Amino acid sequence: MTEIKKQKAGEWFATLQLQICNEFEQLEREANSGYYIGDPGTFEFENWKRGDGTENLGGGRAGMMRGRLFEKVGVHTSVVQGEFTKDFAGQIPGADKDPRFWAAGISLIAHMKNPRIPAVHMNTRYIVTTKDWFGGGADLTPTLSAQRVQSNPDAIAFHKAMKETCAKHPAADYKAFKNWCDDYFHLAHRDEPRGIGGIFYDRHNSGDWEADFAFTKDVGLSFLDVYTKIVRSRMNENWSKEEREEQLVLRGRYVEFNLLYDRGTTFGLKTGGNVKTILSSMPPMVKWP
Amino acid sequence: MTEIKKQKAGEWFATLQLQICNEFEQLEREANSGYYIGDPGTFEFENWKRGDGTENLGGGRAGMMRGRLFEKVGVHTSVVQGEFTKDFAGQIPGADKDPRFWAAGISLIAHMKNPRIPAVHMNTRYIVTTKDWFGGGADLTPTLSAQRVQSNPDAIAFHKAMKETCAKHPAADYKAFKNWCDDYFHLAHRDEPRGIGGIFYDRHNSGDWEADFAFTKDVGLSFLDVYTKIVRSRMNENWSKEEREEQLVLRGRYVEFNLLYDRGTTFGLKTGGNVKTILSSMPPMVKWP
Repeated sequence: MTEIKKQKAGEWFATLQLQICNEFEQLEREANSGYYIGDPGTFEFENWKRGDGTENLGGGRAGMMRGRLFEKVGVHTSVVQGEFTKDFAGQIPGADKDPRFWAAGISLIAHMKNPRIPAVHMNTRYIVTTKDWFGGGADLTPTLSAQRVQSNPDAIAFHKAMKETCAKHPAADYKAFKNWCDDYFHLAHRDEPRGIGGIFYDRHNSGDWEADFAFTKDVGLSFLDVYTKIVRSRMNENWSKEEREEQLVLRGRYVEFNLLYDRGTTFGLKTGGNVKTILSSMPPMVKWP
Repeated sequence: MTEIKKQKAGEWFATLQLQICNEFEQLEREANSGYYIGDPGTFEFENWKRGDGTENLGGGRAGMMRGRLFEKVGVHTSVVQGEFTKDFAGQIPGADKDPRFWAAGISLIAHMKNPRIPAVHMNTRYIVTTKDWFGGGADLTPTLSAQRVQSNPDAIAFHKAMKETCAKHPAADYKAFKNWCDDYFHLAHRDEPRGIGGIFYDRHNSGDWEADFAFTKDVGLSFLDVYTKIVRSRMNENWSKEEREEQLVLRGRYVEFNLLYDRGTTFGLKTGGNVKTILSSMPPMVKWP
C-alpha cells in the first residue's frame, strides 16, 4: 500500500512540475516585447543525486528559468530517502523509534522582472516515516507597498482561490491554514508580514489518504491557475524606475526571511542539502540601500 | 575602578569612530572623479536609544556613509547596559549569578564601489558582568576570486598588520586569533571562507587591564592604517563590468554569512536589537544570478 502511495505522490509532483513549467514558458512567450527585453526564456533542467553515490538516497530534478518576464524562477522536485539523525528524529512524527524516512515534494519560487507582478511561493510534499502525511502551501508576495494590502485585487484573488480549494475538501481547514501561513511568513525582527499570505499546512493526515492527496493536488493546480491569471492581468502594465527600486529593496525582506527563519532553507543548508537548489530561491538582484 | 574602565573604553570607541570617519571621508575626497561618479560622500550620524525609554538601557551612535568610493559603510558605536535573560545569562562568563551587564563597542563594515578594493569588517568591544573582558577582530573580504588568495598583496599586508599588532602585546596570541578568525568566518554550507581572514578574539582578559585595553586600541588603529593603505593602493585601478558582476555575486556570500551564522546579527535580530543598525551591514546591491 505505502509503495503505491509513494509512487502516486512522486509521479504527481513530476507531472505538476512539467505542467507549471509549460505554462510559465507560455507566459514568457506572451510577454510584450515592448517592456520585456530579449527572447522568451525556457526552463533548464538538472538532475541531482543526494549523497556520495554509495547508497541510494534519492535526488531531485531542478528546473530553472531566467527569462524576460520571469526574472528568475525555480520549480524543483525531489524524491529522497534515508535516516534522520538522532537529534532530528525525535522531532518528527513516527521517527522516534525507526528513523527511516521517505519524502517527495515540489517547491517553487518566482521572482518577476515587473515589480507590479507579485513574487510567489508554492511547495507541497508527502512524507513517510512509520506515519505519513502531506504538507505545503502557497503564498503571494507583492513587491510594491501599494499592493501589499489585503484590499488589493491580487490579494483578494489569491485568497479566494485558496479558500475555494479548501472548501472542496472537508479535511482542509481554510481558516487554520490561512492563520498558519500568516504566523509562519512573518519577519519577527521587523514585525512585518512577508507578503499578503495564503495557506500553510503540515502533518496533514485525515485518515483518508486519497482525499488528502486530492487536496494537495488541488493546492498545486489552484495555485497555478490563480497565479497565471494574476501574471496575465499585470504583465502589460509598464513600471517606473522607482517601482523597480522598491521591488529590489523588498526582495531584501525575502532574503532575510529565507536565511533567518525558513525551516526548509536553514535546515537544508545546515544538514548537507543541495546548496545550489536550496539557494536558487534567492532573488536575482537585491538592494539594501 | 570598574567605572573608570567603562568610561575609558566608551570614550575610546567614540574617539576611534570619529577618527575612522574622518579618514574615510578623506579617501572619498581623494577618489578620482574619472571613475567615481558624483560628489564625495560624508557620514551621517544618528543617535539611538535602547528600550522604550522607561529605564536607561543605553544606546548608540550610528554613522553611515553612502559615497562614491565607499558605496556603503557603517561605523557604529554603542554603550548599553541591562540584564541578560535567564537562558542567555548561563552562557556568559560571570553572568550566571548576577545577570547584569554593561557593554561598549565599535563595529564597522565597508562595501566598496570598486570591486578591486576588498570589503572589510572590524569590531572591538569591552564587556562587563561580574567579570570583564575585551573581544573583537578585523577581517578582509576581497570580492574578486583572483584576489581571494593568501598570496595577494592585500592579504599579505592585512595579515602582516595584524601579526605586528599582536606582536607588540604579549597577551595577544596571533596564531590562535588568526585561526579563530578562519574558523568563525567560514560558510559551512558552501565550505568556503568568507574572505582571506584576519584576527578574531573574545573573552580576552590577561589580568592586566591596561595592557588588554592597549591591545584592543591597537587593533582598531592598525586596522585603520592598513585598510586605508589598501584602499589608496587600489582606488585608481579601473574595473570592468565583469568584475563588478563578480563583486555583486560575492556579496551574496556576505549576506548568507551574516544571516545564517553571524552571532551578533542573528542574536541582535532575534532579541530586539536595533534592526536598522544591525542590518546596515548588508551590502547595498547584491546578485544571486
